[in-house]
Amino acid sequence: MCLNVNPARPGAAYGYVDMGGWKGGQAEYVMIPYADFNLLKLGTMSGGAMDKILDLTMLSDILPTGFHGCVTAGVGPGSTVYIAGAGPVGLAAAAGAQLLGAACVIVGDLIPERLAQAKKIGCEVVDVSKGPVQDQINAILGVPEVDCSVDAVGFEARGCGHSSHKEVPAQVLNDCMTITKAAGAIGIPGLYVTGDPGGVDSAAKEGSLSVRLGLGWAKSHSFHTGQCPVLKYNAKLAKAIMYDKIKIANAVNAKLISLEDAPKGYKDFDKGTSVKYVIDPHGTCKHHLGCGHHVF
Amino acid sequence: MCLNVNPARPGAAYGYVDMGGWKGGQAEYVMIPYADFNLLKLGTMSGGAMDKILDLTMLSDILPTGFHGCVTAGVGPGSTVYIAGAGPVGLAAAAGAQLLGAACVIVGDLIPERLAQAKKIGCEVVDVSKGPVQDQINAILGVPEVDCSVDAVGFEARGCGHSSHKEVPAQVLNDCMTITKAAGAIGIPGLYVTGDPGGVDSAAKEGSLSVRLGLGWAKSHSFHTGQCPVLKYNAKLAKAIMYDKIKIANAVNAKLISLEDAPKGYKDFDKGTSVKYVIDPHGTCKHHLGCGHHVF
Amino acid sequence: MCLNVNPARPGAAYGYVDMGGWKGGQAEYVMIPYADFNLLKLGTMSGGAMDKILDLTMLSDILPTGFHGCVTAGVGPGSTVYIAGAGPVGLAAAAGAQLLGAACVIVGDLIPERLAQAKKIGCEVVDVSKGPVQDQINAILGVPEVDCSVDAVGFEARGCGHSSHKEVPAQVLNDCMTITKAAGAIGIPGLYVTGDPGGVDSAAKEGSLSVRLGLGWAKSHSFHTGQCPVLKYNAKLAKAIMYDKIKIANAVNAKLISLEDAPKGYKDFDKGTSVKYVIDPHGTCKHHLGCGHHVF
Amino acid sequence: MCLNVNPARPGAAYGYVDMGGWKGGQAEYVMIPYADFNLLKLGTMSGGAMDKILDLTMLSDILPTGFHGCVTAGVGPGSTVYIAGAGPVGLAAAAGAQLLGAACVIVGDLIPERLAQAKKIGCEVVDVSKGPVQDQINAILGVPEVDCSVDAVGFEARGCGHSSHKEVPAQVLNDCMTITKAAGAIGIPGLYVTGDPGGVDSAAKEGSLSVRLGLGWAKSHSFHTGQCPVLKYNAKLAKAIMYDKIKIANAVNAKLISLEDAPKGYKDFDKGTSVKYVIDPHGTCKHHLGCGHHVF
Repeated sequence: MCLNVNPARPGAAYGYVDMGGWKGGQAEYVMIPYADFNLLKLGTMSGGAMDKILDLTMLSDILPTGFHGCVTAGVGPGSTVYIAGAGPVGLAAAAGAQLLGAACVIVGDLIPERLAQAKKIGCEVVDVSKGPVQDQINAILGVPEVDCSVDAVGFEARGCGHSSHKEVPAQVLNDCMTITKAAGAIGIPGLYVTGDPGGVDSAAKEGSLSVRLGLGWAKSHSFHTGQCPVLKYNAKLAKAIMYDKIKIANAVNAKLISLEDAPKGYKDFDKGTSVKYVIDPHGTCKHHLGCGHHVF
Repeated sequence: MCLNVNPARPGAAYGYVDMGGWKGGQAEYVMIPYADFNLLKLGTMSGGAMDKILDLTMLSDILPTGFHGCVTAGVGPGSTVYIAGAGPVGLAAAAGAQLLGAACVIVGDLIPERLAQAKKIGCEVVDVSKGPVQDQINAILGVPEVDCSVDAVGFEARGCGHSSHKEVPAQVLNDCMTITKAAGAIGIPGLYVTGDPGGVDSAAKEGSLSVRLGLGWAKSHSFHTGQCPVLKYNAKLAKAIMYDKIKIANAVNAKLISLEDAPKGYKDFDKGTSVKYVIDPHGTCKHHLGCGHHVF
Repeated sequence: MCLNVNPARPGAAYGYVDMGGWKGGQAEYVMIPYADFNLLKLGTMSGGAMDKILDLTMLSDILPTGFHGCVTAGVGPGSTVYIAGAGPVGLAAAAGAQLLGAACVIVGDLIPERLAQAKKIGCEVVDVSKGPVQDQINAILGVPEVDCSVDAVGFEARGCGHSSHKEVPAQVLNDCMTITKAAGAIGIPGLYVTGDPGGVDSAAKEGSLSVRLGLGWAKSHSFHTGQCPVLKYNAKLAKAIMYDKIKIANAVNAKLISLEDAPKGYKDFDKGTSVKYVIDPHGTCKHHLGCGHHVF
Repeated sequence: MCLNVNPARPGAAYGYVDMGGWKGGQAEYVMIPYADFNLLKLGTMSGGAMDKILDLTMLSDILPTGFHGCVTAGVGPGSTVYIAGAGPVGLAAAAGAQLLGAACVIVGDLIPERLAQAKKIGCEVVDVSKGPVQDQINAILGVPEVDCSVDAVGFEARGCGHSSHKEVPAQVLNDCMTITKAAGAIGIPGLYVTGDPGGVDSAAKEGSLSVRLGLGWAKSHSFHTGQCPVLKYNAKLAKAIMYDKIKIANAVNAKLISLEDAPKGYKDFDKGTSVKYVIDPHGTCKHHLGCGHHVF
């Protein structure tokens, strides 16, 4: 984890709030600090990288992040996996779990459109508003537990089984402990904040969660948090994309838009739409090699 | 983690409450279910195992448990380590960290007698009643963080810095997150229960802890809980004992007592004495090969 | 590695020459020593295990063996992999590499029928009689190196580029070192014997190989040999089969034969045919649950 | 492994023949290419780094190299370890094994002075001229096998048991396979060259070794070769030195000499003396902070 470039805290990111101050990634041109260390050359791969630019753009964040959740959760050939959340990180985790050879990938969410997208890419789904997760997993697998879990939701979790869907920050983690087998691991790419001024109560405001840790302890769970170390994964994932082993643009339902349409895209995204927007500031990707692509 | 022998939950233990029903380990003779799988032969080692029986007895639980906390925390050559708790598990973790080549082992506790014992075996100490842990670590290391932390306390943590020392279940974990470096791991051999009828509030009663998980997430911490898989470690640790690489009986201040003195030993232990009692039911160890030894 | 059941050497196997003396695995009925430890229950999986019995039979040896070669070689998502040998172990390694998410799997052999089978399951192929392996890999990948190599041939390697195809025991290992990238690993499920009475020279007779170890050393290679620890993999691979993530019967071109046809099957196998025979001693698999299946 | 700075091959080193062309490390002043990436800051550690400069100088090569041999061999708490060779790499491996918590470290060599040095730092010793290694290990441990082996000799091995001590390049590796337990690993920091113009025969000239690989295969050995990735280890080892957990200068019998005495030092070293020379070009270390130190 980089301790140097961001004086405020460990880790940093381009174009991300509170992660080092490199604002403005979504523009015609961007200047890349530490480019010699951070950039990934795509030209050394056989085949035309621009043909898969929509997929390759996902290497900047969302694919490694979801994949990292799976790796830290111990997903491998034959695993059964539960992924909480069918937003872009959850769908990337689902695609990552499939790439890792998982036997069965189950995705949970509340929003029908997102669940439909998960189903479209070959996942089983759990509608967390329809009753306990363990019961729905039992109906799918014949046992109420999975080998590995990924929390792709984070602190903004909505209550499962509550009609109001109010914020219940520890809900997802408690679910993951309930349905992960003994000695299993839980990957947590979903963000938990150090403090949330708009939190539901004073505990949430200081980033405290009321977690049923005793439940996890009794099952010898391990928990893996934090920002993804993108460089650890992106070269290998680029090759997986180039050789058609993962179709991440399809998995997250990527859609190319112009810079002008970005504000509208953000609005739709906030409504919970199951689309991942990629901004192509110079026109269509097909015609402009070397154009900057930006994703949100 | 064994899923078979204990119908109530994953994992099991001899002579331990609620871990499979094998009561009565502290007696003249014990019958060992699954002995063909679980027993560790000491006779194949060079040298007389009975000469080190006080140390070897610690292989049944306390040494592997503390050692497992260190292994899962990532302790290795050159590590700086904070161990919360100077009870038997904490002292075993401290001795384990030294065996693993740690550069500096720092033990925190409230009880002067326990801190003195940690100091005696070469550790630095932090009196958690004397102010923030990070400040005391800074005074020792020159930086307010360690590479690895071990929570050898669990849910019965007493408040650090509170004169009343009342139960503050998440205190130790929150401290560990505060003082563990980015990308570090926290080993948690200290017990967290699924429910505690005598808990300080309704959350504690259902085993919920108000943990500052956002703090750990921002530093990409990982957390490793659960009962120690003793068979993973005991053969190697037995060799470390036989070759004098770890002096665990000395580290936990082991004392041999008769079966008759066990009730008194328990009473002293509950008072927080820094002694680990080993029951020798048939007289002195030196004279009786093959006697049963029991430890608490 | 089991040190107990086979007094002659570490490791053991059912129905295999010189591996513990349990002859006669290919029969109407077999008695299984250590069954409580070794058998894998298939009934707990959802779906009918008998529908996939041809695939599941491969769990007894060939699939874990090939898969182990890939795991020790470090195959993972995005890897480029060279597998020397398109016999059953090589084809199982190829299928295993695909399950592990490899970007590109390249299989080398001399026999056209075997290469055709590798191609059929989606691999690139190298005909080692047609020139240096590195040149053919370069033509496929654009670079003359792969990330990982698996030696699925062993000491009976035939000379690459020699018209006579005479035995050249170290040829495959030397090739693997030549074409594996720096810091890569080489998995060696292919058998190397401690001594070969029929070896081409006195060195081969005592199991010595003239290996270009300096070549591997300069590239920091690691080498992983030995019999596969089947229990480490078979439960997970069973799930991968049941959920259709690997089609191993198809990969090794499995064919069901009767016990009476076994001698003919052996004869064909010795000729280098690309078929893996599964003996069904009691008639067709579809109709007889619980029948013994044997594979060679 | 760095693929960029040395066009001739993977890996590079300062002041080393054929490793990138940075000659002349043993001088009053040196210029350090890639210093921003490669240098290790010692000033952040508590205590005076100059007080331990003789130890810290060993971080540049010899300590990480020996330590890497142990790590790749799987040395850990309770391990029994055989280290072939009591030159500086072997002695550094021995000290590294002790730091890693090994139960018993056994060092083999032919030269009495080197064996005496190994004994002085707490190792058991095997004089390989006095009969089979396995017999001498059996006399020490009660079993003829160790858990882990390190080949700190390389291709210039002299024959064990031969009065003439002629070069027998594969002798050490064959010994390591003979005495390493099943499923064990062999770390090979000792150099094997891609070609040796002065090799004893045509095989040696092309870097081929007649290795008894079948022996290792039957025991499922793994083999780990190559130059040490120094940056992986040196920060942690620096802390181990600063906290007195390893006394590497003492282990390799380090001796400070002036630049003028370097030629004489080389001469003594070539004779097999058990001294590691550290050149202090500006006078005594104690008085000159920031002086360049060079080691051979």
